[in-house]
Amino acid sequence: MNSTSSNARAPVLLSGGFVVPEQVLCHATSLRKATRRISQMYDAVLAPCGLRSTQRSILMQIARSQVPSMSELATALVIDRSALAHNLKPLERDGFVSVEIDPNDRRSRLVKLTVMGERKLIESQAYWEKAQECFESVVGAEHASELRASLTYIASSEYVEATAATHG
Amino acid sequence: MNSTSSNARAPVLLSGGFVVPEQVLCHATSLRKATRRISQMYDAVLAPCGLRSTQRSILMQIARSQVPSMSELATALVIDRSALAHNLKPLERDGFVSVEIDPNDRRSRLVKLTVMGERKLIESQAYWEKAQECFESVVGAEHASELRASLTYIASSEYVEATAATHG
Repeated sequence: MNSTSSNARAPVLLSGGFVVPEQVLCHATSLRKATRRISQMYDAVLAPCGLRSTQRSILMQIARSQVPSMSELATALVIDRSALAHNLKPLERDGFVSVEIDPNDRRSRLVKLTVMGERKLIESQAYWEKAQECFESVVGAEHASELRASLTYIASSEYVEATAATHG
Repeated sequence: MNSTSSNARAPVLLSGGFVVPEQVLCHATSLRKATRRISQMYDAVLAPCGLRSTQRSILMQIARSQVPSMSELATALVIDRSALAHNLKPLERDGFVSVEIDPNDRRSRLVKLTVMGERKLIESQAYWEKAQECFESVVGAEHASELRASLTYIASSEYVEATAATHG
């Protein structure tokens, strides 16, 4: 699985003898780069249905959470509320979601999937399956499943608690 | 590693019997959520040095690539050129990078780490090591290393070629 660069060269030295590693060692960077690559692939496969992979994730999470508040949805997506509000705007404009005041707590907003949003999500399913199959056929279905289990743990509140317990 | 929700409920059904999976099955979504979580942690640990984790990745890649062109840098970071230009602006404004016309190809721009940028990168190293240790202590050093190898493959041009070969 390791890729070797065909134009490998001696490590770069900065002042004070600081060695720049030839490969990316940063876990955050390697996650971010893989996410960008996969998002490009999913976006390309989803393009005919007009949803981006991030948008499909949001619609699916709204369906899963069943009329979540903005805060609940932001937590489920591991995103801050202002980024969520920004990402919801085009979905609201296109009529896929509606954002309404919570009748039980007027300071809170509830996010709903509209009938059009539900239809769009269902329409996107065949494209999404194609993207999943494409990823699994290259990476291997079993490895993809193990990878997703690891990533699900990292995204979970259990991981945050374990981090806090270890490092205060 | 699998987390079970304490408030699990019956699967949500949409019209036409479409079942909303209780857990995230989408590989792109699970990667994105893990990336956001880890970025939050790295950003918090890096905060005292004033760099975000994305910014440190960019400075490190510029150092690694040694005066890359904008295109080379964008490719190495798996990012499009307009997003790169957007992300470089604050780094240029703060004097950490300079963007100059390539004397050998006036249509091309070269990205350089300034002396200040080099110092900032070196200054960030201790914070970054703390973030890496924090991640590895929770996930396990060996598992973290395996995970990074998988992610490096997914981000690589080899993965893109394998995807193209499989699905045209």
